[in-house]
Order: sequence, then structure tokens, then C-alpha cells
Amino acid sequence: MQNYKMVLSYDGTRYDGWQKQGNTSNTIQGRLEALLSRLTGEEIEIHGSGRTDAGVHALGQVANFKLEQKWDCARLQEACNQYLPKDIAVCSLEEAQIRFHARLNAVEKTYRYRILTGNVRNVFERHYVYEYGKALDTKAMRKAAALLVGEHDFQSFCSTKRSKKSTVRMLHEICITEKAGEVILTFRGNGFLYNMVRILTGTLIEVGEGKRSPEEMPAILSAKDRTKAGFTAPAEGLMLMAVGYPEAGAEL
Amino acid sequence: MQNYKMVLSYDGTRYDGWQKQGNTSNTIQGRLEALLSRLTGEEIEIHGSGRTDAGVHALGQVANFKLEQKWDCARLQEACNQYLPKDIAVCSLEEAQIRFHARLNAVEKTYRYRILTGNVRNVFERHYVYEYGKALDTKAMRKAAALLVGEHDFQSFCSTKRSKKSTVRMLHEICITEKAGEVILTFRGNGFLYNMVRILTGTLIEVGEGKRSPEEMPAILSAKDRTKAGFTAPAEGLMLMAVGYPEAGAEL
Repeated sequence: MQNYKMVLSYDGTRYDGWQKQGNTSNTIQGRLEALLSRLTGEEIEIHGSGRTDAGVHALGQVANFKLEQKWDCARLQEACNQYLPKDIAVCSLEEAQIRFHARLNAVEKTYRYRILTGNVRNVFERHYVYEYGKALDTKAMRKAAALLVGEHDFQSFCSTKRSKKSTVRMLHEICITEKAGEVILTFRGNGFLYNMVRILTGTLIEVGEGKRSPEEMPAILSAKDRTKAGFTAPAEGLMLMAVGYPEAGAEL
Repeated sequence: MQNYKMVLSYDGTRYDGWQKQGNTSNTIQGRLEALLSRLTGEEIEIHGSGRTDAGVHALGQVANFKLEQKWDCARLQEACNQYLPKDIAVCSLEEAQIRFHARLNAVEKTYRYRILTGNVRNVFERHYVYEYGKALDTKAMRKAAALLVGEHDFQSFCSTKRSKKSTVRMLHEICITEKAGEVILTFRGNGFLYNMVRILTGTLIEVGEGKRSPEEMPAILSAKDRTKAGFTAPAEGLMLMAVGYPEAGAEL
């Protein structure tokens, strides 16, 4: 039995997300499992570092899967890229320690959210940017972001109903950068709740348009109530950039 | 009567080019003319700086059109962007001198051709890059490019049959740059024949893969025979970057 770790890029535009509950085959995970099973003749289960929603993209999603038979990594990667649809790519594929698990071992994730603030769309990036189309007060957004960074209970920034699982997460950084006609938010943390990045983004946009003041952030956090936070920013602007694992141990 | 100049971006992937002979409405020009006619109630004819083939993109195509009634440029641009499909954008729209003609007055064009040389595709750029997938000898390509630059009869690099029109063009520059997994060719000249950039690219690729030597270039040029040059590189890698006009006179 050999465990394999792969890094994936995908354009999420035409998929129902990484994994969907219920009976949909139009998911990234579904496509990968079907192809790997066909290539290897084994029944494959792929574990992603986490789900991405319908329409969300990934530059560096990480996943692992096990095979009974040993395969040459370069050959398997090449075969995957040959048969996968053009909007999914296997960027790397390597042997991993048998205990490596893409979700359970992940210690850090980086997401990027792109907001078009100019009034002329970039036609080449149109699937990867939220076409907001108005200016944003990034100074106010940075103030608010500073109040959200740190270890908090992010219940208010989570779309799922209360469960027994902890909603405490460590948000290391929210970096807000501007380029011509665009504001880009980069979120780095030890993990993110369902829709958390999109709700953080929606809330920061409402700060940036003056509908909320940065000082509201602590009260939103302590309310632990989804209705207190801002809207869920649309999926298309979001991209999972990278997943981090401990330096030693988890990988070969 | 007022003349207007517009700069356009488009993703050419799903269009039959800028303009197609015959009865196709699925062209960029066709979409623009239909929309502008509907918005203004006037019958509009749009003149582009030149045609782009099916599948070719533009970052800065230039076009002009005349209106009987005077319009506010910002309002007209906004209306265009509101109703145009998401893969076409009007980047700027301004009043032009009545004699300005986007094709007849153009003095310089810049095209870019992107070649994927790595073996892993960039899923987000997949429509804008030729997926060649092998390494290229850019040193040899630069040698060949230097022999193509200048004023020449580019008949060998033109897909249409001999006509009475001159096939002499001034090619100011072919710039070859490399980035991770990609080779990018930038062509700047006073004008380009039908398919010229794609045939120049195909020929340079054949040099880069060692099938041709750079020293063959002068003989290809002097043959004035399309069959002596290389293949026509696919449309998707090509983008019209910018169109230049004389500093004064042609524009307001």
C-alpha cells in the first residue's frame, strides 16, 4: 500500500465544488476519483485538504490517495493531465508517508479573494474576480481586518448551523492589496469554517463601502450569530492558494 | 456627425473573429454594431484597426464609428459594458476627429503570442496560451528573430494568395521572453499580413525545437512562398495588445 500526495489547480467555474453531498458527479473530487480508478484499476478514495464550494477555484489544493500497486509518480501525473478536463491540472504528484492525510494534517491554508473595483471588467480574468465595480475604502477595510485577525470564535462568519465542533480558528493574517481596478484580500489561517472567507470578505466589503464601521468587528465576533456579519461574497472571486503541512513527519 | 474612438478588450475564444466574410453574426464587430445600433437608434458601422481571426484575443483593439446624434462618452461606454457579453469590454470611448479611421490611420501594432513550454497547464490561462508542452531553444529563436526583424516582403508569412497589394511590412521588433513554463513572443510592426504573426510564431517554434536553423530565415523571406515557412501557430495563444496612431492629428 502506497500513499500519494498531489497538488491540484482547478478553475471551479463549471463544477459543483470539490465534493458535494448527495449524488453529483460533477465535482473535482469525483472527476479525479473516476480517472484514477480507471487508470489504475483500483477503487480510489481521494482526501482533499478541505472542500471548496461550487465556483471556487484552487491554485494549490492538496489531496492524498492510496494505491495497492506502486506507480511511477511522473507517469501517473502525466496520465492524469492527459485525461483530465482542461480546467483541472495535477501540478505535482509524489509519494507520501502512509499516515499522511491531506485534511487531518493540514496546519495552514491561504485563500485569495479578488474584487474588481474599477468599472471596466478585465475580460480575461472575468471568472476569477467578483465584479463589484465600485471603489472601496481600503484604509477602513485594513482597520477592520486588524480586528478580525487572531484566535477567535468565528461562529458569526460561518454558514452552517451550530454543531458540536469548535468554531475557534486562528486567523494569522488578512493582507489587503490594491492594483489597477482591483482590491485583493489574502487570508492565512490554521483553518477556515464553511463560507468563512466569503463572509469575512462580504463584511470587509461592507466596511469598505461605508455601511459598517471597523469598530463593529469585535461585537460581530462576540455575537456568535451569522446574521450579525456581512453578506457572503460570491464564489467566483475566491481561490484556495496553498495548504501548509508540518515541515517534517507528514511527508516523505 | 460625431466620430468616436473606442479601445476594446475581448476573449476571442467563442467568437468567429472580429469580422468574418459571409453571414455570421457571431463576431465581435457584429455584436458591437448590433448593440450600438440598439442603444442609439442609428445604423452603425464600426471600423476596427484590423481583423482578428477566430479564437484570437485582444487587450487593446481600436475601432471607430460615427453617430448623427452627439452622445456623452462616459454614458455610452457604461451602457455598452452593461449590455455586452462578459467576454467583450469597452475599455475607453472618446470623441475623435471626424477624419479619424481606426484602420487607415494605424501606424503600429503590437501582438503577443504565449507558448506553454512546461508540461503542466495553467488552468486559469488555458484559453490564452498555446499548449505546446515542450522546452524551446530560445537562444536559437532569438537568432532567427533578429533575421526577421526589419523591412521585408513577408509574402512567405502570409496565408492569403498573391494579390496586387504590397506584402512589404516593417517589423520593428520581436521580443522573446521566458517565465516559468512559458515563452512569450512580442511582435511590434507597422502592420501585419493575414496570419503573419501566427506563421512567424510557428516558424520560430520550429527553430526552437531544432527542426530549422536560424540561418534559414533570409531564404524563407526571399522565396516569397508560404510553403517555405513554418506552421501556423494556433489562434488561442495570440493577443492583439495595442494599436498605435500618430501623436497628433488623428485623434482629438
